[in-house]
Amino acid sequence: MKPLLLNCDIGESFGAWTMGLDAEVMPFIDCANIACGFHASDPQIMRRTVALAVQHGVRIGAHPAYPDLVGFGRRSMACSPDEVENMLLYQIGALDGICRAEGTQVRYVKPHGALYNDMMRKPELLAAVMRAVRAYGSSLPLMLMSTRDNNDAQAMADELGITLWFEVFADRAYDAAGMLVSRALPGAVHHDAETVATQALKLARGESLTASDGSELILRADTLCVHGDNAGSIAAVQRIRHALKDLEA
Amino acid sequence: MKPLLLNCDIGESFGAWTMGLDAEVMPFIDCANIACGFHASDPQIMRRTVALAVQHGVRIGAHPAYPDLVGFGRRSMACSPDEVENMLLYQIGALDGICRAEGTQVRYVKPHGALYNDMMRKPELLAAVMRAVRAYGSSLPLMLMSTRDNNDAQAMADELGITLWFEVFADRAYDAAGMLVSRALPGAVHHDAETVATQALKLARGESLTASDGSELILRADTLCVHGDNAGSIAAVQRIRHALKDLEA
Amino acid sequence: MKPLLLNCDIGESFGAWTMGLDAEVMPFIDCANIACGFHASDPQIMRRTVALAVQHGVRIGAHPAYPDLVGFGRRSMACSPDEVENMLLYQIGALDGICRAEGTQVRYVKPHGALYNDMMRKPELLAAVMRAVRAYGSSLPLMLMSTRDNNDAQAMADELGITLWFEVFADRAYDAAGMLVSRALPGAVHHDAETVATQALKLARGESLTASDGSELILRADTLCVHGDNAGSIAAVQRIRHALKDLEA
Amino acid sequence: MKPLLLNCDIGESFGAWTMGLDAEVMPFIDCANIACGFHASDPQIMRRTVALAVQHGVRIGAHPAYPDLVGFGRRSMACSPDEVENMLLYQIGALDGICRAEGTQVRYVKPHGALYNDMMRKPELLAAVMRAVRAYGSSLPLMLMSTRDNNDAQAMADELGITLWFEVFADRAYDAAGMLVSRALPGAVHHDAETVATQALKLARGESLTASDGSELILRADTLCVHGDNAGSIAAVQRIRHALKDLEA
Repeated sequence: MKPLLLNCDIGESFGAWTMGLDAEVMPFIDCANIACGFHASDPQIMRRTVALAVQHGVRIGAHPAYPDLVGFGRRSMACSPDEVENMLLYQIGALDGICRAEGTQVRYVKPHGALYNDMMRKPELLAAVMRAVRAYGSSLPLMLMSTRDNNDAQAMADELGITLWFEVFADRAYDAAGMLVSRALPGAVHHDAETVATQALKLARGESLTASDGSELILRADTLCVHGDNAGSIAAVQRIRHALKDLEA
Repeated sequence: MKPLLLNCDIGESFGAWTMGLDAEVMPFIDCANIACGFHASDPQIMRRTVALAVQHGVRIGAHPAYPDLVGFGRRSMACSPDEVENMLLYQIGALDGICRAEGTQVRYVKPHGALYNDMMRKPELLAAVMRAVRAYGSSLPLMLMSTRDNNDAQAMADELGITLWFEVFADRAYDAAGMLVSRALPGAVHHDAETVATQALKLARGESLTASDGSELILRADTLCVHGDNAGSIAAVQRIRHALKDLEA
Repeated sequence: MKPLLLNCDIGESFGAWTMGLDAEVMPFIDCANIACGFHASDPQIMRRTVALAVQHGVRIGAHPAYPDLVGFGRRSMACSPDEVENMLLYQIGALDGICRAEGTQVRYVKPHGALYNDMMRKPELLAAVMRAVRAYGSSLPLMLMSTRDNNDAQAMADELGITLWFEVFADRAYDAAGMLVSRALPGAVHHDAETVATQALKLARGESLTASDGSELILRADTLCVHGDNAGSIAAVQRIRHALKDLEA
Repeated sequence: MKPLLLNCDIGESFGAWTMGLDAEVMPFIDCANIACGFHASDPQIMRRTVALAVQHGVRIGAHPAYPDLVGFGRRSMACSPDEVENMLLYQIGALDGICRAEGTQVRYVKPHGALYNDMMRKPELLAAVMRAVRAYGSSLPLMLMSTRDNNDAQAMADELGITLWFEVFADRAYDAAGMLVSRALPGAVHHDAETVATQALKLARGESLTASDGSELILRADTLCVHGDNAGSIAAVQRIRHALKDLEA
């Protein structure tokens, strides 16, 4: 069984402002989605974050976003596919430039926030993201959201010759289409650590989840999104890591 | 005789704003100092500018700057050496990321505006610039200003193992130390095309200039800075290019 | 007959970049929509622009926008009503602060670009804009687009006690709903100066236009949008101004 | 005896990033120096901060800065006096715009960080700051640093007809000129709460301090700078407030 990689948004401080418990979560993850200065971070923080990832042997991913610091990249912006393609090349390259000073490099790409959501809804934006990834280096995997039917995204990737890593969530409920249930609805977020760890294990084993309408849902799961925001989320990551180790043993 | 490379600041438009006659000057230069988004440009403009350079076979250089769009990178900022090192890695990488989509890469580095001036005055900033260049790729030459005595800069570069390209100016008067005469003083700028072309030729041949105090000044000249701001500067570049071709023939 | 006020976007340069023929168009307009630093302009340019408006006795309006310099405020952003309300207060106040140094003040508000379009489509954003205008000073008129049926906007404004100035266009075709025909469609933009001036006169007289489906369209017209981008648009403004003077005489 | 006003930098969060214990310190201060979006804050945070100040009856001051979010306004920038004047008008106005929605207004001005330091060192920048304050509203006091000899600043202010509030520090050692001892030197910062409170009381009473060279130093003290960064600084503010209440009783 291929191990389920734990990925986490990292390096989201900015200037004098601190966010996230990067040093605490880094030991427990496989893949660090490092902010590239458009929604968070700056060259100084990127350097420190890359060094921290290297220290813990964590794979470095570019976490590019819309240019919206004040909105933390969470607000959809009507950018054209060309704009998206080029802002990705810019941000991946910028992080890769920082990586060189720490003797490492960008190993994958995961778009952030509103850009991630928009590429899942708009094929022309997903195609733009894929073109950027391929142009930067065709061996870079692209993380995107796993849904019930990943065929369209996979076909697009196959045509361009890029690798996809499908991402799943252990702390969120899914609907029948394999989309996340809106946070506005009850039961959208799992707060119980046991439930979260159980969902993580099911996803790692390829077992089905129960969607919000009661149907069975099987999701391709290459990587699991975890969080390093606070003590509770660090504890959750540790628990998931522990459960996966047992599984992989 | 090694040819004197003509370098020009290029790609300094931003968003909806246009600056410079990039398409007009590109055919006549060897090296395009391409803005990286901190003092000018954005990912869309960088992409177009890189494509234009590729089309004309012009070498692409990163033209990194202080983070000051509204001041066009012309205002000195009290940045630490670490900040300078990391902002250079970021900007060089960002441009290099864009270059990948056009099948090319960054071939040298020339800091912009106030950062260029500051690194010439402050050895700790010059060292930071050199560390960034070496970390990015030790084969990247760094353009910096040629003065009467370039020994300190050369020694620093030798220690780090990086290449320096010394830059000279054909349209500016020099003082005895080989520094540019302040624009506030009379005679600081040569407006006559003949005078400019003559100074370019002297520099290319390794001949001495007459400094503002009447002394002889010999400057190491690897590259000459030209401008693409307006029709007059384009005409000047063409004249210099013509004169250098005769010389190299 | 109430005169039809000519309004024009002004002061859209930024830092070292110039845009628009502000000095050329200012003598012919009534209302200057002055950029406030979010899509264009900066404090230096705002100061110069306000001084120019004062010199020509032109009414100063705040022209607030989404925070998107690189996109010139033309890209829709998913901002909340609260965010829109507060970004308007910020921008109106900033321009008004500059105005104080020139002995004048902001006299009306016209949102820019994507924010203008979004407030016309989304009542909750229009309400946010109106709340900002009322909070800033209830006597400030708000410019918005005149359509076939302005009742909803008018009712909202009446409830808040603010004044609306309905804006019309002389160089654009309208559809039956009184919305602008998309620029992607043929005939959307009138390029002929005679056609433009004729439409301006009809709007000033309260006469009906012929919509794109052939129906008659009467639009409330308090102010007409003109442009100062280039020599052609300046000529068009002069022609419209001349025609209106005859009418008002 | 005129009461010594406690002023504190407030509202220095930005977008998704939080900084400072604003709600905790607000009840104990007289004057809130509210960030205006150039070194920190954004329209949403400004609105919340103004509301909090109103709730506690705290005087609102504009805390304008150089345009340097990533450097938190702490890096000196070579801005011209005109640039400084206009960036102040812009920021004061922006905050005042937000104030209108909460039924209040800007009551004084205190420049931030590097701009504060630069205006104390460069008379042409201090003059620019004073011109902005006068243009905005001549009744707005300007906070600046009290030194042994405040005559030059006072003369400049008298000529322009503006009011100065001289600021002192209870947690810092002074040199003989009444300048703060550099943080790089031992004894520059008082960490002991008793020492801090004692210095605050001396300043409030107009008593002399002992400068770092052993000389007596009397400082004009209109306002005392306190901090709301962490629990320790909140405790210090409470202690100072308590001591001053006894004094004023």
